[in-house]
Amino acid sequence: MDLLPPEHSFVSDNAAGAHPAVLDALVRANVGDATPYGGDRWTAAAVARIRDLLGAPGAEVLFTYGGTGANVAALQAAVDPFEAVITASTGHVHTDECGAFERFTGSKILDVPTADGKLTPELIAPLLNPLNGEHNVQPAVIAISQATELGTVYSLEEIKALADLAHAYGMLLFLDGARIANAAAALDCSLQDLAGHVDILTLGGTKNGMLYGEAMVVLRPELIRRARFARKQFGQLASKMRFIAAQFDALLSDNLWLHNAQHANRMAARLADGIRDLPGVELMQAPQTNSVFARLPAEAVAPLQQWSPFLKWGAGVRWMTSFATTEQDVDRFLAGVAQTVQCADFATAGVL
Amino acid sequence: MDLLPPEHSFVSDNAAGAHPAVLDALVRANVGDATPYGGDRWTAAAVARIRDLLGAPGAEVLFTYGGTGANVAALQAAVDPFEAVITASTGHVHTDECGAFERFTGSKILDVPTADGKLTPELIAPLLNPLNGEHNVQPAVIAISQATELGTVYSLEEIKALADLAHAYGMLLFLDGARIANAAAALDCSLQDLAGHVDILTLGGTKNGMLYGEAMVVLRPELIRRARFARKQFGQLASKMRFIAAQFDALLSDNLWLHNAQHANRMAARLADGIRDLPGVELMQAPQTNSVFARLPAEAVAPLQQWSPFLKWGAGVRWMTSFATTEQDVDRFLAGVAQTVQCADFATAGVL
Amino acid sequence: MDLLPPEHSFVSDNAAGAHPAVLDALVRANVGDATPYGGDRWTAAAVARIRDLLGAPGAEVLFTYGGTGANVAALQAAVDPFEAVITASTGHVHTDECGAFERFTGSKILDVPTADGKLTPELIAPLLNPLNGEHNVQPAVIAISQATELGTVYSLEEIKALADLAHAYGMLLFLDGARIANAAAALDCSLQDLAGHVDILTLGGTKNGMLYGEAMVVLRPELIRRARFARKQFGQLASKMRFIAAQFDALLSDNLWLHNAQHANRMAARLADGIRDLPGVELMQAPQTNSVFARLPAEAVAPLQQWSPFLKWGAGVRWMTSFATTEQDVDRFLAGVAQTVQCADFATAGVL
Amino acid sequence: MDLLPPEHSFVSDNAAGAHPAVLDALVRANVGDATPYGGDRWTAAAVARIRDLLGAPGAEVLFTYGGTGANVAALQAAVDPFEAVITASTGHVHTDECGAFERFTGSKILDVPTADGKLTPELIAPLLNPLNGEHNVQPAVIAISQATELGTVYSLEEIKALADLAHAYGMLLFLDGARIANAAAALDCSLQDLAGHVDILTLGGTKNGMLYGEAMVVLRPELIRRARFARKQFGQLASKMRFIAAQFDALLSDNLWLHNAQHANRMAARLADGIRDLPGVELMQAPQTNSVFARLPAEAVAPLQQWSPFLKWGAGVRWMTSFATTEQDVDRFLAGVAQTVQCADFATAGVL
Repeated sequence: MDLLPPEHSFVSDNAAGAHPAVLDALVRANVGDATPYGGDRWTAAAVARIRDLLGAPGAEVLFTYGGTGANVAALQAAVDPFEAVITASTGHVHTDECGAFERFTGSKILDVPTADGKLTPELIAPLLNPLNGEHNVQPAVIAISQATELGTVYSLEEIKALADLAHAYGMLLFLDGARIANAAAALDCSLQDLAGHVDILTLGGTKNGMLYGEAMVVLRPELIRRARFARKQFGQLASKMRFIAAQFDALLSDNLWLHNAQHANRMAARLADGIRDLPGVELMQAPQTNSVFARLPAEAVAPLQQWSPFLKWGAGVRWMTSFATTEQDVDRFLAGVAQTVQCADFATAGVL
Repeated sequence: MDLLPPEHSFVSDNAAGAHPAVLDALVRANVGDATPYGGDRWTAAAVARIRDLLGAPGAEVLFTYGGTGANVAALQAAVDPFEAVITASTGHVHTDECGAFERFTGSKILDVPTADGKLTPELIAPLLNPLNGEHNVQPAVIAISQATELGTVYSLEEIKALADLAHAYGMLLFLDGARIANAAAALDCSLQDLAGHVDILTLGGTKNGMLYGEAMVVLRPELIRRARFARKQFGQLASKMRFIAAQFDALLSDNLWLHNAQHANRMAARLADGIRDLPGVELMQAPQTNSVFARLPAEAVAPLQQWSPFLKWGAGVRWMTSFATTEQDVDRFLAGVAQTVQCADFATAGVL
Repeated sequence: MDLLPPEHSFVSDNAAGAHPAVLDALVRANVGDATPYGGDRWTAAAVARIRDLLGAPGAEVLFTYGGTGANVAALQAAVDPFEAVITASTGHVHTDECGAFERFTGSKILDVPTADGKLTPELIAPLLNPLNGEHNVQPAVIAISQATELGTVYSLEEIKALADLAHAYGMLLFLDGARIANAAAALDCSLQDLAGHVDILTLGGTKNGMLYGEAMVVLRPELIRRARFARKQFGQLASKMRFIAAQFDALLSDNLWLHNAQHANRMAARLADGIRDLPGVELMQAPQTNSVFARLPAEAVAPLQQWSPFLKWGAGVRWMTSFATTEQDVDRFLAGVAQTVQCADFATAGVL
Repeated sequence: MDLLPPEHSFVSDNAAGAHPAVLDALVRANVGDATPYGGDRWTAAAVARIRDLLGAPGAEVLFTYGGTGANVAALQAAVDPFEAVITASTGHVHTDECGAFERFTGSKILDVPTADGKLTPELIAPLLNPLNGEHNVQPAVIAISQATELGTVYSLEEIKALADLAHAYGMLLFLDGARIANAAAALDCSLQDLAGHVDILTLGGTKNGMLYGEAMVVLRPELIRRARFARKQFGQLASKMRFIAAQFDALLSDNLWLHNAQHANRMAARLADGIRDLPGVELMQAPQTNSVFARLPAEAVAPLQQWSPFLKWGAGVRWMTSFATTEQDVDRFLAGVAQTVQCADFATAGVL
């Protein structure tokens, strides 16, 4: 292809580096000693900031290195090994964490096929009754991703309905917030709104502009002890924790987290707009957050990936944007898509 | 106390921040996109550097976020759940990782009391014979820390003797290298020397001047597949891995790792020298690496900790130095110790 | 209801007691001392008998107390924790063992919806490619139940096709043989035929006429060590093992296992024949082994269960026969079904 | 050796068969159908009997197949994976269950060396303080064996002292009662006395005269749910449970359990009396229950084992008696010991 590829790929929002303000905060935290394992002032400040944003002064905020770590340790706090977690079949904890949940908790995931990555009370109901006593794992947690792995978002009403169902059955609602900022941007709501009916959640840092670092947030006091120990036992307790906390502090200042997410979402919208009229390319749905799912002619995929990498996704492709994606990136990529699709031999090609 | 406390405490070598050259490398890695999960050029460079330093071109080098993560994932590669790991009773994996090993591997640790934190063939022998078939866990790994948690080091001959014993019984030798740099500095030998007879090891970054990041090094090809998956399943596969790799690359350039360790060891020696003649203070052993173990009058400990924090350690105290410790830190601390001990009421005091 | 209920219920084939010849063998084994944990002559004899029936002189035969124990320990021998087992969604190990597999192995089950409880290469294929490296669990075992939980059976050709697929992908084929005798009876083939392409299997004793006791059979030498230890570690190594072995010895003598299964299958066929012409009752499929699945008027189920217990099964009911079911049992039950259905108010009733 | 060996060996109390009255009860339970998994009248009767003997009408009684199963499932009910169980180093769950506890619970055992297999508050105290937060596993259960693996027994006062310590620290007291009958016989006390301060325990059936079968007894209501599921998830829920229950019912009738234990203890006392005066044989301690520990000339052990099998035990030997051991067995064995020791070449022999 004779076009320049975009400087930022569309492979994932974790292919980007760190936001300069976040990196700068990390650099400034490198002064003198700090009590290891979270007994430092950066951690105290970042915890206070998260409690404030969530409107939850009593929340336990536990930083972790990574997202699998945050998800698994948080869920460990909420389930006994004979209990089960209900997720969408597309849930990250079910599909992309190499069985870490089962390995660490000993529990089982009951996955539910969905059209759009979103659970509903109707989809969950068949798993709840009847339960055959000790022969069956006992559903104890409904786990949702917000935004979902398909880029969709739950409305606040939808979250409340799931929370109500969970609580009516003595279950808990867990929210995987690896991309919660993108959801907040899409819904134009606060993090407090999003966490309102949730019992335990994770807050993503890495995909929102940090180098590394996520947070578990425990909103039910009875889960705190288990969550703290689960974090350590799952190898997620950072010794030099100030370097995670300082990043969170910067990210959550001056709405940087939100601006980053709004920007990423806008770039996905721009990309979607650009392909709507491209012959041979089918936009699978209007993007709600920072991912675009499309179908291309089968023979166009590999050349396009080679020019600028991205992932295949089922029968289509996934293009993700991030805080770092530029308009120029999008426009260059659109030009590349157009040229690739044009060159594809439509006569012989099936659709991917 | 009317003295100024040291700027760097002696609580642990992970209370320090990052070495400026390491931090600088991390900052410089924040350019554009990078393939996530280790498919980036920084990772390739750092892996090559470690292979070179170990003289092991075929070694599998797997970066992790933290030390518990590296230890547990590496051991997972080497044991089946009915097998056991033999460690010193003071081994980090036995005492300080909240049972992460048992939790993740399902295996058992057979711990052996030692005088100095070091296993010997003689100490291990009683665990090896006779074995009562499937009623007993089967020893499969000898796990040593180099340097040990008591600051002692294994000589190269001692490591070889343990490796020979392990291999004679069809077992593997694992080396926890969270402080391998301090051991190399103490022994004046190369990392290649230290890894010579070992089957799988970890290489510490955090305590040697990084912000975060450790490495698993697999020297037996048959363990590689399990090690790779164990890293992911234990939540230690970093998405933006370049930021760990860039740090390692800097740390392992121009012998920075060694200079950092030599400096830390020297500061411990200076501290030990300074207390040798202090009345009321007993140096428990000449330091070999970067920790000093001493006994103080019981009533002196708490005031001294309050002035400058450190840990109690059994019946004594532990003071640790790091790459960041300055001579002034040591000298100020010595003055503080002297003054505190002097003030203690020797008439009524027992020894801690 | 004014009819006499059957003496044997249709709730499950484990509601029956033990076959007299099996019980008698157990009683006769109560003579003097025996080496515990399987070092006794009854165990040696029963192992030899199983090897002979399977035509597998090198097979490792390991008796267990129960079926969950046999399944889980056998699968533990065949998977690493980052690997996965593919089962039908109706598989016992997926639905009825309270997550014991995940709990004990740390591995994941990939379940596949089927029409009839039977996996096919076509159903499995989508799980095999593409695999996204260490982010995904790695399929390592195809696990089938023979007969299935829906009472269907795999033909020998179908088993071979699954074995070929498994082996082509470096996977193993596991067979849950809790009702293997019923399958052999249905197919009119030998146990050797059934085990021909299988790598590891279980042989059911309890449902075939024993008081308790199952067997793991390991046909691949490289799995034997793990299987032996898994049995012990999962609490399935009987100290007074002769009492399991003596039962197996009797069951496998003079084709008692086969006669028991043939009888149970015949009773199911008789039951199915009897309801074919009953108005209001729908036979969901012709029974292949010892279970009958049917649909009744919704309001008839509870009264019928109260008169003679059985299980609801999805939208229908399940009636199981065993070696102990008599023709009189079947006929009495048929009369009860007829009378109950007749009394149901068809005008207002929906179908279950 | 020209003597006849004893008919019953001294290798273990699980080398014996079943008591005739127990076997007879099992045979009589083979009548018609029974609700599987414990919903039968034999189970109800045996549960009532155990509640009565323990004076605990609200106790949850859960039958299991085996002893490892009972111990591990009971402990699973009492610990979270970051918590630890304190046992004597000789504890069965630590030494003889192939790491089943760690495998299934993910928790850690903190073992304490003892002189006589018995924990004391003084021995446990160092494990309780100080605790270093989430870096350390948290002691949650004190686990004792009564009688111990060394044949010793805790007095009722000693049990109360351990219970008081446990409860003062928010821990639970677990009692492994595989040989609780022998302890009751030795102390001349009731099972109610023994269980008085205990929170959760197991009751041994197999070593006391059953073919198979143990019981978990949960005395704290908040542990019941976890205990029920742990039993199933650990593969210990018997489908034809009546056959375990019927045995327990017989064993616990007319004090058969106690007579069996008293007899076994008497046989051990007779054996000990018989070797007290044998030159070359050293009785290591007066037996309290049904095991005799002795030292023999090293060269006498193997010939004696070959004549009548028993186990070596550290530097000595262990001889166990059971309900089935006869006076003639003891006397014949004593004659064999005397002759073997006499033949040993004392001039050249060391002592084992």
